[in-house]
Parts: sequence; C-alpha cells; structure tokens
Amino acid sequence: MRPSGRTVEQVRPIKITRNYTKHAEGSVLIEFGDTKVLCNATVEEGVPRFLKGQNQGWITAEYGMLPRATNSRTQREAAKGKQTGRTMEIQRLIARSLRAAVDLKVLGEYTITVDCDVIQADGGTRTASISGACVALHDALSGMIEKGVIKHNPFKGLIAAISVGIVDGQALCDLEYIEDSNAETDMNVIMTEDGRMIEVQGTAEGEPFSHDELLTLLALAKNGIDTIITAQKSALGID
Amino acid sequence: MRPSGRTVEQVRPIKITRNYTKHAEGSVLIEFGDTKVLCNATVEEGVPRFLKGQNQGWITAEYGMLPRATNSRTQREAAKGKQTGRTMEIQRLIARSLRAAVDLKVLGEYTITVDCDVIQADGGTRTASISGACVALHDALSGMIEKGVIKHNPFKGLIAAISVGIVDGQALCDLEYIEDSNAETDMNVIMTEDGRMIEVQGTAEGEPFSHDELLTLLALAKNGIDTIITAQKSALGID
Amino acid sequence: MRPSGRTVEQVRPIKITRNYTKHAEGSVLIEFGDTKVLCNATVEEGVPRFLKGQNQGWITAEYGMLPRATNSRTQREAAKGKQTGRTMEIQRLIARSLRAAVDLKVLGEYTITVDCDVIQADGGTRTASISGACVALHDALSGMIEKGVIKHNPFKGLIAAISVGIVDGQALCDLEYIEDSNAETDMNVIMTEDGRMIEVQGTAEGEPFSHDELLTLLALAKNGIDTIITAQKSALGID
Amino acid sequence: MRPSGRTVEQVRPIKITRNYTKHAEGSVLIEFGDTKVLCNATVEEGVPRFLKGQNQGWITAEYGMLPRATNSRTQREAAKGKQTGRTMEIQRLIARSLRAAVDLKVLGEYTITVDCDVIQADGGTRTASISGACVALHDALSGMIEKGVIKHNPFKGLIAAISVGIVDGQALCDLEYIEDSNAETDMNVIMTEDGRMIEVQGTAEGEPFSHDELLTLLALAKNGIDTIITAQKSALGID
Amino acid sequence: MRPSGRTVEQVRPIKITRNYTKHAEGSVLIEFGDTKVLCNATVEEGVPRFLKGQNQGWITAEYGMLPRATNSRTQREAAKGKQTGRTMEIQRLIARSLRAAVDLKVLGEYTITVDCDVIQADGGTRTASISGACVALHDALSGMIEKGVIKHNPFKGLIAAISVGIVDGQALCDLEYIEDSNAETDMNVIMTEDGRMIEVQGTAEGEPFSHDELLTLLALAKNGIDTIITAQKSALGID
Amino acid sequence: MRPSGRTVEQVRPIKITRNYTKHAEGSVLIEFGDTKVLCNATVEEGVPRFLKGQNQGWITAEYGMLPRATNSRTQREAAKGKQTGRTMEIQRLIARSLRAAVDLKVLGEYTITVDCDVIQADGGTRTASISGACVALHDALSGMIEKGVIKHNPFKGLIAAISVGIVDGQALCDLEYIEDSNAETDMNVIMTEDGRMIEVQGTAEGEPFSHDELLTLLALAKNGIDTIITAQKSALGID
Repeated sequence: MRPSGRTVEQVRPIKITRNYTKHAEGSVLIEFGDTKVLCNATVEEGVPRFLKGQNQGWITAEYGMLPRATNSRTQREAAKGKQTGRTMEIQRLIARSLRAAVDLKVLGEYTITVDCDVIQADGGTRTASISGACVALHDALSGMIEKGVIKHNPFKGLIAAISVGIVDGQALCDLEYIEDSNAETDMNVIMTEDGRMIEVQGTAEGEPFSHDELLTLLALAKNGIDTIITAQKSALGID
Repeated sequence: MRPSGRTVEQVRPIKITRNYTKHAEGSVLIEFGDTKVLCNATVEEGVPRFLKGQNQGWITAEYGMLPRATNSRTQREAAKGKQTGRTMEIQRLIARSLRAAVDLKVLGEYTITVDCDVIQADGGTRTASISGACVALHDALSGMIEKGVIKHNPFKGLIAAISVGIVDGQALCDLEYIEDSNAETDMNVIMTEDGRMIEVQGTAEGEPFSHDELLTLLALAKNGIDTIITAQKSALGID
Repeated sequence: MRPSGRTVEQVRPIKITRNYTKHAEGSVLIEFGDTKVLCNATVEEGVPRFLKGQNQGWITAEYGMLPRATNSRTQREAAKGKQTGRTMEIQRLIARSLRAAVDLKVLGEYTITVDCDVIQADGGTRTASISGACVALHDALSGMIEKGVIKHNPFKGLIAAISVGIVDGQALCDLEYIEDSNAETDMNVIMTEDGRMIEVQGTAEGEPFSHDELLTLLALAKNGIDTIITAQKSALGID
Repeated sequence: MRPSGRTVEQVRPIKITRNYTKHAEGSVLIEFGDTKVLCNATVEEGVPRFLKGQNQGWITAEYGMLPRATNSRTQREAAKGKQTGRTMEIQRLIARSLRAAVDLKVLGEYTITVDCDVIQADGGTRTASISGACVALHDALSGMIEKGVIKHNPFKGLIAAISVGIVDGQALCDLEYIEDSNAETDMNVIMTEDGRMIEVQGTAEGEPFSHDELLTLLALAKNGIDTIITAQKSALGID
Repeated sequence: MRPSGRTVEQVRPIKITRNYTKHAEGSVLIEFGDTKVLCNATVEEGVPRFLKGQNQGWITAEYGMLPRATNSRTQREAAKGKQTGRTMEIQRLIARSLRAAVDLKVLGEYTITVDCDVIQADGGTRTASISGACVALHDALSGMIEKGVIKHNPFKGLIAAISVGIVDGQALCDLEYIEDSNAETDMNVIMTEDGRMIEVQGTAEGEPFSHDELLTLLALAKNGIDTIITAQKSALGID
Repeated sequence: MRPSGRTVEQVRPIKITRNYTKHAEGSVLIEFGDTKVLCNATVEEGVPRFLKGQNQGWITAEYGMLPRATNSRTQREAAKGKQTGRTMEIQRLIARSLRAAVDLKVLGEYTITVDCDVIQADGGTRTASISGACVALHDALSGMIEKGVIKHNPFKGLIAAISVGIVDGQALCDLEYIEDSNAETDMNVIMTEDGRMIEVQGTAEGEPFSHDELLTLLALAKNGIDTIITAQKSALGID
C-alpha cells in the first residue's frame, strides 16, 4: 500500500492553472499532489551569441527552489553565490526536453526562457517542471502568433515527464518524496505525446537494476505520461 | 484620479492567506492588489556565532523576486552568483523591522529566518513582505508555544509597513508600480500596532521634499498601517 | 554630558581639505572629529548602458572602509570576494544623494564616480562621506567648466548629511561611535542647502520612536546641516 | 562505414596504464582511442559532515578537462571562477557510479576522491572516466588492505561505462567525437560486471527515439561493457 | 636628467608618520615623493590553522590601492569580487619580507596582519609598503611588550625595500611612475639593515639584462636601502 | 650527498616530448626527473582589448596543477571558485618570460596562450613550465609559418628557466621537492640562450643571503640553463 493509498501505476492528482501570474508570456502553476511548481515563460528578441546569424531561435530554462519548499530549509542559492550541481543538472534537463517540442528554425531569432520555481516540494519537482513548462511554452508561442510576432507556430507537440522507481522491490509510478527517498532505483522519463522518448535517466540508488526491471519501469512511465498529456490537453482546451 | 480608482488615502485590497505551504513553521501569502509575496518562517535551534552564549535568539530575513515577478524578466540572482544591493538592502530592512516585534531574550537560543519571495510584483514588495512576514512570524512563535519548545511567547505586538509617496504633487498612500515609478518622493514607513515608528525611509527621487510634505506622508502612512493591522488581526483571528 | 563634552546640538569639529590627492578631478578629505573619509571624484566620458542615448549624465558612488579604520580589524572586502550589504546600502545612499545636487541633463554624457574611503571611523561615516563627496563633486564639475569640457555648470546647490539619534532618552546631534552604538534610535538626514530633504532614514534600534521624537530629531538635523553647509562653503571659498 | 573503420559494435582500442603518477593511492591513465583520461584516487581519513557518526565511508569524484584537451581551447574553469553545469553533471555521475562498486559500510570512515582529468578528448570522456576511475579505486582499496588500514575489502565488483548512440539512423557503440556530434540519440550506460545497470542516460539530441531503438542501444552497450570489463581485469591481473 | 631633477642614485624625499590612525596597534603613513601608503598593523590572538599547536606566531599582509590612487581610476577590487594577480603577488611579497624581520617562535601564538593601502601612487608602491610596514610592525611589537602581552621582543632588525631599474640604458634608483613605465629592466630589492638580501626580483620588461647590469642595480639598491633604513631609524627614534 | 645522488651542479634527467597531444598547435610534455608538466600552445586570432589596433600580438599563459600532482591532494581551483595567489604569480611569470622570446610586432594580431598543467610535481614546476612552454611556443610559431598564417617567424631565440637554492648551507642546482622544502634560499632564474637574464627571483626562506651567495647561485643557474637549452635544441632538432 502506498502512503497516499494510490495503486502502483496511479499518478497523483494533477492540477494545471494557466495565467497564474500576470507579467509572463506563459504562466502555469502545475501541481502533482503536494508538489507545486510555477513555470513562467519569457519571450525575448535575439539569441545567445553561439547562435547569432543562424536563423534559429533558442529555448532555455532555469530552475530554483524556494528555500522553504522543502521539509527543512535549504540555503538560498542567491545568498550562497552559486547554484548547486543538482540545480544545474535539472535546468539543463528541462531546457533540453523543451527544445524537443519546438522547431527552432520556425521560431526564428527569439529566445524563450522558462523559469521553473518550486513553491512546495514533495518529490518529482523536475518532472513536474517539464510537464508544466511545456504548457507555459505553448501559451507563449500562441501569444506570439496572436500578436503577429511570428507567422507559423513552431510547436511540434506536447511533451511530458514522469518519475518512476522501485521501492521495496515494487515498481511504482510518480513517486512522492517519502517513496523517492527510499527508492532503490529512480528513473525519469520524458516523452512526446506520440509515445517516443526524449530522455530516459535511470539511476540505481541502491542495488543495480535488471533489464526486466527497466522494461517494467518504462511501461509504467508510458502510462503515467499518457495521463499527464491528457491533463495538459484539458488545461489547454485541446481535445 | 489614481489608475486603480482609489482615493489618495486608500490602501489596495489586502488578502492574507495563512498556511499557504505545508513545510514552513509559518507560511503566509500576502497580496496587496497585484503584489503577491510568499512569506515563510523557519525555526531553527541555535544562533549565529556573534550571539553565542548571550542567552538570546535572533530573527533574520531573506528576500528574493522570482525572475518573472516583474514586467520584463530580471536575471536570476542565483545564476548571476550574487544578490543585488537592492535585495540586500531590503532583506536587512525586513529583518530589522521584525526584530522590533519580538523580545529576543524571551525567545532564547533559536533563530527564525523569514523568507520573503515575491511571486508577482506591482509596487510595494518590501512593505508587503514586512506586513506578511509579521503574520508568518506570529504563527511560527505560536507553534513553538504549542509544541512546548518555549514557555513564554516573545511576540511583543504586530508591526506593519506601507509605502507612501508624492506623485504629480499629490501625496498618495500605498503606491502601485505605475505610481511608484513616477513618484517624486517615495517613503516607506514601518510602525508598531500602537502607532510608534520602527523605521522611516523617505527618499526624494526628483525634487527634495519639504517638512510639511513629510508630515502629510507620515499621516497617510499611519492611516494605511491601521488598515493593514486590522487585516493582520482578522487573518490571525484576534479581534 | 556627552563623551566629547559637546552640547546635544553640537556638531564635532569639521575639517575639509581639498586637493588631498593629486590624480582625482576632485579630492577631499573630510574629518568629523576622529571620523576621516577620503572622497575622490572621477570624471569619465560616457554613461552606463541603461542611459545610452538619453542625453544625460550619471553620478555614482562607491564606499569602502580600510580594514583597520575600525577598532578591531574588519575583513577586507576585496579578499572576501564581495561587498557586504551594509557597504552596498551606503554607496547606494551616497550616489542617490549626490544626484540630487546635479542636473544630469546639463551634465551631458559623462559619468562621475565618487569613491568614499574611510581612513578612520568614529561614527557617522556615511554622512561624512556624503558631505565630503559633495565638495569633491563640486570641484570636479568646476574643473570640467575650466577645461571647457562642458559649458554650463550642472551643480544645483550644496547638499549635506548628518546623523542624529536618541541615546539614553536624549536626542543628540552628530553621534560619535560610542553614542551611536548605544542609540535607541538612529536617524540619517540629507538636506539641500535651502533646507529641503533629500533623504530621511530613521531606525529604531531598540524601542520604537514617537512622532514627537521624530520632529525633535529633524530639528537637530536641520541645525547640524546648516553648520556643515557653512563649512563646505568656507572650504570652497563661496560667500 | 565509421570514420575509424570500426564495425557498429566495435569498441575503440582500450589501453589502461596503472601507477601512471607516483603520488596517488590509485593512478590510472585510460585511453579509448584518442580519448585519454587520468584517474587519480586519493584516500583520506574522515567523511563529509552529513555522514559524521554513521560508521560508513564515502566516495566522491571531480572531473576536469585541460583547456586544450579539445579541438579549440575551452576556458579554464579555475580562471573563470566556476565549474560549468556539464562538469558538475559529469562528476556527480562518476561519483554515483563508483559508489555502486563499494560497500560504504565496510569501507568505514574514509573518503576516497577520484579526480578524472581529461588530457585529450575525442568523445566518451565521461564513460572513459568511470571505467578508468573504477580501476584506480580498486588499486586504492587494495593499498588500504595491504597497509592494514582496513581489514576487509569493500570492493563489490567492477563497473564500466560506455556511450552508444544513433548516427544517421544507425546504432553505434563507443562514439568518437565526430560521431557524437552528429548523433540523433546519445546514451550512456553504466553496468556492473554481472550485467546489471547502475545508470542509463539516453537523450534525443534530434528526433525522439523509439522503444525498439532503446533496446538496440542497450544491447550494444552490454556488449561494449563486456569488452571494457575484460580490459580492466587484464590490467588488474585478475582472470 | 631625471624628471624630478634627481641624480641616478638619489632616493625621493622620504616621510614617515607614525600613529597616523588611532585604532591600529601600529599605524604608519610612508611617503616616497608622491607615493603615499598607509600601513596599519593589527595584532590578534591565535594563528592560522596550518600553524596550530606549533608554538609560533605568524605575520601576514594585505595590499590594496584606493581606486583613484592612480592617474586613471582602477576598478575597486571589492566591487569586482576578486583581487588581481598583481595584488596577490604584492601582498605575498610584503608578508614574506616582514617575516624575515621577526622571530616567529619568540612571537608565540599571535598573528600580526599588516594592511598596506595605497592612498596615492607614483611608482614603487610595493617597496614603500614594505618599508613602511616594517615600522608599523615595530610599533605593534613594542606595544605588545609594553602591555606585557609578550615578554621578549621578537623583532630581529629593520628591513627595507627599494625599486631600481634601467631606463634608456641608464641604471636608476627609486623609480617614479614615469620612469617605471619606461624601464627596460625593473628590479625590487629587499634587504636587512645589515645589508643581506631577503628578496631580489629583477624583470626584463624589454631587452634581457646582463650580469654586469644586475650588479650595477644591486649596488644602487644597497645604497638606496641605507637611506631608507636611516629614515626608519630616525622616525623610530633609535640611534 | 643529494637525495638523488646528483652533484651540486647537476640537473635532473630532462625529457622533452613534442606533439604530446593532438589538438594543440604546440604540445610538449617536459619532464625534470619526476616533475612532469604538459605545455599546450593555442593560437587564436585577435588580441586582448588593451592591445586592439596596435598592430601587435600577445602571448599569455595559464598554470594549473592536477589536484593529485602533489603528495597530498590539493583542492581543485575550479571547485574552489578561484585561483590561488601562487597560481596567479606563476602564470604571470611564465607569460612574461615567454614574451621575451617573441617579437610581438612581427607576430601581428594573434594571441598565443600556453597552458602549463602539472601532471606530477617534484619541485621546480614553474621553471619546467617555462622551459617546456618555450618549445611548445616554438612549434606553434613554426606551424603558423608552415600554414602561411604569418610570413616571418617572430621567434627571437630560446629561453629556459631553472631553480637554484641553498640547502644546509650548500648551493644546489635544480632543486627537487625534498630539497626545495628545506631550502634557506630559493632562486628562479630565466635566461635567453645567449646568457642574458629575463627574470631573477631570489627569496630568503630562512636566513637572508649575501651578495656572494647570490653570485654563486647565478653561476649555478647559468650552467643549468645551458643544459636545458641543449635539451630544447635536441628536441627541436636544431643543432
């Protein structure tokens, strides 16, 4: 029995609130149970130096946790003067995933930055960030079309992410914190809405995992991602 | 006529939501119109080195703005590797003000850190932070009493803060962003619930101000602070 | 009785030495009793990026304390790798105050940086910095006129600053260190030579202060600032 | 045809030189074709603060590239003042993988740090680092046994890592730089010598990848890792 | 003819003012012509970690230049967030030199930090720093004896430093800025009062220098250092 | 008797391996006994800002030690976030020395950066760096000529560096670590192949040194440098 009473394949209640703040071109609060992440997409003209003159756009991301998003307070990175390795790893993952959802050539010389800030953490903050960021990105791109900034929408399709893992020998979908911290194996899967993979990151925290366990986890992930994609579509009002 | 249709002495609608997140010992979302600040109070054992062995506690504060809390995106301080002078100035002000609400000797060797993170900015983020942080601090201290961590409540009384200013020659209470950015004089006032001053910071952004203007601003501030104190009491359920 | 034998409204002996060093366009050593600050004004062509193309100049300031300006050695900020919040707050205050003394449109696209370095500290270093920096600024602008760099002098009038406070229930003017460290209320006031206010920063270090106490402090400040303005004029050889 | 003339499943020539430098407790130069990484293991008494008093040891890793290990010079991280996100991500991966090879309880309160410094890069530096670091770690632990520092060897078995990927629609094992920079999908796999997985990181650089492609890549990786394990055993003189 | 009208072997007018500031245990303003450096010595109990328990003291030094000590403004190191290589090199040199003047065993577990801050620069700031710092150190040690902090004076003898160089083929003593910036060879020499060498640093800025030129420069340096030692003794009132 | 059995004037076995890595324009591994330094020269178009438009090139250098190049592990500077004063001092020395070997006007607007990374340290890493870097620089310049990038070779002649010192009252050439750490006087000498001096840095670590000792050390250095120049020529195949 899981702490929340969920079945092994069950995803936590998902809530996606669009236009959560008023300034950003796309602003989404995504909730996976008690995990709450605010995803704000900002559109700016121009591209980073390494892309100058290549007639393409860029998508980047930054990730942060409010100091008391966690059970005990974590030191503010701004006060410490640097981002941790974990933060850098996560924001690189978010950005890489989002770029798979967009045709950068069609976007043209614009940069979209998605800020994912964790308001409250209860496991799965990086996958919630990606799933929410995709909706914020969608809204930002739609806004560009509406304002006539770009003519063709470079959005290629929704992407979503889920964490799965093995806890006490049992494969589970969408780990909450208490499960995650006891997992022997932890895996983050990011997929397109047509079921192809953008990123798979499986890590043995305790014992190494077998090929069969990997397959079981991938199947759970596929299932969970379908649920998230449905929630994203519902929030966006697309069938 | 003010952009919001308010009278010169009118404060924006105030909304105070307690227990906004689940981990912090005190967690308050305070809203002044479109300005929204999350204030999380954390209680930790021990005191900073400079207070060791002096049988007293400490209150400190940190302030941050989500990158897209503002109209155009501001660079993330954690990514930049340092806090701006503005941020440091504000968090020093918040902490100093909160310490005026607490008897540190009665608190004993505990440190309370209040994190004020601006979710959405529309003027007056530092004063909203102080007014919200005071409620979060109150909740954190009450929790310490309930859990028997301390015997006597060191809370001395509510404090609240407001910004006032002169815009186009007119003294106004509780400036929103569009007013604030055109103000000739800008003043932040922090008071106790019995109407005494903890901090007064008046700055001429354009023309210097006269003694009479100072008095007018102080009167507006006093009035606004009474409204905030009422809202704090209502949120806390103390008449 | 004050430690120095001064009356409550008496300012310490003020000494202003112009051309203290030979390289700066304006170089002033200001002494308030044992507080000694070297204020060097540097004129450079061009303005910061945010002012490009706006046909106006800029005044900025930096503040530092020699490590042994104080009673016990403070760590060198350059060695530590960052400026403290206190330093940033002070240099922002100095710059803001100086900008009130100059018509930036008339200055044109030049930046004047005033470095205030505390050689010896005995209370009131920020107010001494402002009062000395104004003289250095005056000299730098006069030099620009003399060299024909600019045609019209953008100087609008002298400004000066003083600290006042309440110590043992008694309002005092121009606190020296021993008084400052025991003050219940500490207030810095910056005024133009015609008696209008540029900045008022009053802080209750212990008990909150009343409206009447505020008025008493402002009166003391006004008086002290008159004395400083007289000293500035005398140093500059004007009327 | 691959640039090197290899078959799709063929690993580059592997060379493992033990005792490459004289100071480290384990010192291995590992070469995968033109990729050369120096892996130095250091044994130190004590553990990081978060493990104090838990009767266990710790394995950590740091990764660096000499500025001219690459085709064009990359800025020295020490000069820049910070490690890139890529570096942090890689050294976290190396450390996590190595910890899977050791029973930290048996190690006791010692910390082993493995420094992986890339002398020359031609693709696969992170996987070469892990494969070489495991040998250096083995030597360091054997040395501890020989010197009587610990009684029981905490080494649980060899681990090795390989990169595989899809280039021009073709799945390939052990990508060299020119292949890696054109890969549509890139996957790093870390396994134990008994064929279980420690980490799987698959990333779509271009098009998302299918479930079947994932399986093909895993099979290639399993094969490549067997070759590396054989090379490690041969270098260590264990059959 | 030198710009100042000096002969080749002539040192600029030297002025040494003791007790220049009131807080430091030794405080000396040293002037070599227009080069002015404030040297403040601070005595603190305890030694750095690497010397703990070795029954000896430590002498260290820090060096800084006020931003406008130079002809054009140099960026403040505290604002930039790091010390330049030049600064680090100089303060290491000062500290190393001063340690040659003191018997660290006799000093016992105290650390003396000498801060050398350049108020005005006109060439030779590092050698003026060393020559002034030695006097400040002498005063600090004498103060320790007077207060009974230590019983035996660990001072071994005066040290002094001078810069010499070859300008337009001519060997010169005590270069001022205009000479220094045109020197083909620049050499700093630090000696004890009995004429032995503590440090010799000769650098060819343009053409390499010959053995004979080295000898000529050393002779000039010896002569100049005698003059400085005489000035130090006169300032200290010893024979 | 020296630990290595060498005579007082004998240099350790020198080994110079050119083309040690494949990417750099000049790549040299230099070994002085157990001291091994990899020197990679990188040619890039353009010059630093302070040389723009002056029709000349620039030579710079960076120095690093692998964390376990030393007997006990030293903290990685990239992880610490800054280079030590020692590192900065050494890389400034290397660059200054190399610039004496090149006519920067003839080089034209190119920058050559030589990275000296210590793989294994056993004393004399800075002098080995300079001696090896000169060969790498020679190769980089020859390559520019071969590729027709520049027409005339700006190389003016070989330079080499050696450390000499006084250990137990005995002057020795080419100190290894155990000698260096016990030296009373330590001196680094850098010379051109025609025997003129580029840099002389003599430091008394214990007792000050006499004029005669200086002369003895210079003679030893001259002798050692001749040996190194011979080894450089042999490696470069120039008689």
